[in-house]
Amino acid sequence: MAVMDLYLRDYFMEEVELFSDEYFMGKALQLAQQAFDEDEVPIGAVVVHKERIIAKGYNQTERLTDVTAHAEMLAITGAAQYLGSKFLEECTLYVTVEPCTMCFGAIQWARPARLVYGASEPKTGYHGKGLIAAPKIEVISGILESDCAAIMREFFKSKRKN
Amino acid sequence: MAVMDLYLRDYFMEEVELFSDEYFMGKALQLAQQAFDEDEVPIGAVVVHKERIIAKGYNQTERLTDVTAHAEMLAITGAAQYLGSKFLEECTLYVTVEPCTMCFGAIQWARPARLVYGASEPKTGYHGKGLIAAPKIEVISGILESDCAAIMREFFKSKRKN
Repeated sequence: MAVMDLYLRDYFMEEVELFSDEYFMGKALQLAQQAFDEDEVPIGAVVVHKERIIAKGYNQTERLTDVTAHAEMLAITGAAQYLGSKFLEECTLYVTVEPCTMCFGAIQWARPARLVYGASEPKTGYHGKGLIAAPKIEVISGILESDCAAIMREFFKSKRKN
Repeated sequence: MAVMDLYLRDYFMEEVELFSDEYFMGKALQLAQQAFDEDEVPIGAVVVHKERIIAKGYNQTERLTDVTAHAEMLAITGAAQYLGSKFLEECTLYVTVEPCTMCFGAIQWARPARLVYGASEPKTGYHGKGLIAAPKIEVISGILESDCAAIMREFFKSKRKN
């Protein structure tokens, strides 16, 4: 199967329980695909509140000429606007790749109930920097990990060819 | 001298060498004062490129209902827009208080030549998290430290009274 087919497959109708972590990570992965299609590092994020997606983001650092425009940052800002609260205490943030230091810091400030990410990122991820999430934030990793990692690999492989 | 008088004194005409670190930190401190006046945590930041201020920011997390709206974040985004480049390699970022984890992460991505901050922040500052700036970023601290710290103390003192 071609790599691209992986991301385009429908996690929602066929294989995945509705409103499960895999379901929402599939939505985040669709946003990563959108980033990929726009030649951005393919990372996507959604914020979920009471089983509803209230905000989405995908990496737009190139398009916006802004290092702060990571998927998580845009999703956190969007969720706060939706809720009218800067704290996301009843929310889950789904992101396809382990957050970087910046996004980890933002997540600490935003205080979601849960952080769910797909693929680990040993080089830029927060674990590698020795950062530890606040006890009130439940952290789950490895959801749809192989697809979340594959789209990243594919992106950087295509960059090396250019 | 009342605390407020400290911030309102003019660093630019009387006491400070033009375009020195103290000069630009004074500008950041004026932005911290603006945050204070708007009932925001009083932190200000400016980005300087070739002795010109190209972007300003002050903490607006309450006004914008957004944990990501820290002074440094807004200044970094503004500077990138001005330069048309997401990297700030010839710039100095001045901020009145030691950056938090989020802002530190953004600074690492933005790669300014220099980071200059005023007051240390043992609780939320990046040093306390064990984070170390990239070797290419020169870090200077303690510029106008007492005033940068005083306005923070005054702010939180006023909050405790309420």
